[in-house]
Amino acid sequence: MHAQRTQFQPKDPAFAARVRESFGRQKAMHHIGARLRAVGPGWTEVELPHREELTQQKGFLHGGIIGMIADNACGYAACSLMPANASPLTVEYKINILAPGRGDLYVAEGLVLKSGRTLTVTRAEVYAETASGRVHVASMQQTVLTLADTPDTPE
Amino acid sequence: MHAQRTQFQPKDPAFAARVRESFGRQKAMHHIGARLRAVGPGWTEVELPHREELTQQKGFLHGGIIGMIADNACGYAACSLMPANASPLTVEYKINILAPGRGDLYVAEGLVLKSGRTLTVTRAEVYAETASGRVHVASMQQTVLTLADTPDTPE
Amino acid sequence: MHAQRTQFQPKDPAFAARVRESFGRQKAMHHIGARLRAVGPGWTEVELPHREELTQQKGFLHGGIIGMIADNACGYAACSLMPANASPLTVEYKINILAPGRGDLYVAEGLVLKSGRTLTVTRAEVYAETASGRVHVASMQQTVLTLADTPDTPE
Amino acid sequence: MHAQRTQFQPKDPAFAARVRESFGRQKAMHHIGARLRAVGPGWTEVELPHREELTQQKGFLHGGIIGMIADNACGYAACSLMPANASPLTVEYKINILAPGRGDLYVAEGLVLKSGRTLTVTRAEVYAETASGRVHVASMQQTVLTLADTPDTPE
Repeated sequence: MHAQRTQFQPKDPAFAARVRESFGRQKAMHHIGARLRAVGPGWTEVELPHREELTQQKGFLHGGIIGMIADNACGYAACSLMPANASPLTVEYKINILAPGRGDLYVAEGLVLKSGRTLTVTRAEVYAETASGRVHVASMQQTVLTLADTPDTPE
Repeated sequence: MHAQRTQFQPKDPAFAARVRESFGRQKAMHHIGARLRAVGPGWTEVELPHREELTQQKGFLHGGIIGMIADNACGYAACSLMPANASPLTVEYKINILAPGRGDLYVAEGLVLKSGRTLTVTRAEVYAETASGRVHVASMQQTVLTLADTPDTPE
Repeated sequence: MHAQRTQFQPKDPAFAARVRESFGRQKAMHHIGARLRAVGPGWTEVELPHREELTQQKGFLHGGIIGMIADNACGYAACSLMPANASPLTVEYKINILAPGRGDLYVAEGLVLKSGRTLTVTRAEVYAETASGRVHVASMQQTVLTLADTPDTPE
Repeated sequence: MHAQRTQFQPKDPAFAARVRESFGRQKAMHHIGARLRAVGPGWTEVELPHREELTQQKGFLHGGIIGMIADNACGYAACSLMPANASPLTVEYKINILAPGRGDLYVAEGLVLKSGRTLTVTRAEVYAETASGRVHVASMQQTVLTLADTPDTPE
């Protein structure tokens, strides 16, 4: 379905398995209940069901949690285009919160804007979904560093 | 100790109790184990002990968690200068990750740069502390909106 | 041609003339040679022909000049959706430089992501055009404040 | 006077001459009238006298011009710590405009936060000076890439 989402050619044919395996090792994603629901060359979708324990003082999803899933959606979109023996490192990100996080499910869609040898620039949109539709809650722009010849596993 | 950290005059003399009470209602902060350890007029300190369940794929503190505590340190620094009946809303933030999150304890120090009627601009520095010292792991710059006459509680 | 670019309904039917008039009063845009080549509800296009006097130390278009035209493309995209008696104020912006500015003509396309009563969030893409094609040189994400009942003219 | 501003040790003992020479080749800085008034290891000061031709629609200094001098103050602060045969490349920056640019002279002070082998993170504060004092008008956070073994001159 997403085959035509980007024109990027992955350097590592096994990128999807590599990205899923790395995401699976992020204990922080397990802790909040987030899941990588799709990955393609230069894009990802991360989803998070609403949980009371992830809210801020007014009962909405905490902005920091919105940032976490957007950061991950961006970082793994970048990672999907890296060589097999490289490791991604978040340099920085900027996020605008567009609407309060009031949903049953949150979806962060990450997309590569520019894939360079050293740096990759990405974006993510976060949506809050309910039975009545989908609201755009946040937009991120991020920079990722490729660490060449660096395994993406604990030292 | 921090009495001279900023020159700001709080509009609400009971700001510290108000900030602590609002932070206490953030279930997401409880969920990750973060604590507001100090608050003054225009500044805060948020601390987070290291936990295995908050790590990324290489075993360091997840960058999104670093962002969460920095975002909170900034937001409540802004909140400390708001009138009693107002409510803070994060507009946006930008964070640079300066070093991997490898500590026993993380401390996010939030500070107001400019306090306006509608918008407040803040910064935070995040440090990773171990027995051998303190490493600067992240720097944030953030914008917060003051919602006048809006209670900072669930609707 | 651009009629369907966004779904926004302008609050001011005379928005295009108002935006063009305000842009025309920006002496800084005249000084660098930039021109508002198109404006619609929630979007703009700003163009700048290459000039030797706008270059940095390596002979490319200065990154600050790329930022200037992107900032303006964003700000006037926001302004196009404001009421007639309001005035836009740039709160902040973030820009990634994706490629060196090597073109005959630079085009900054601004687009509104979210239009709120107080705050508008926008994006811009900057392209460098030559006879051989178009290169994406920068991406911006910006926040604009609407100053209600404030004329957009010198005090 | 600024000798103790940072604790950084320059890799290139002739950094000040190298930075001044590179700044001097930026035609865009000449075009707006900006000058590098001071440089040390990890910091700079860029000054710009007010000019009618650099204003926006309300007669204040254009926000894009504020961004230009802040970007340069940051970039050359980073450059001061680079090896002699390297070249700086702005990856991205984020700027908050804190107050309108109403001054006789504007000063952008750049400072390195973190100096790494590949990436440098910097900040700048911009002030508007008049006979009656100094107003803080903007704050920037920026990322710079070090291009190793790349002359900082036209190709």
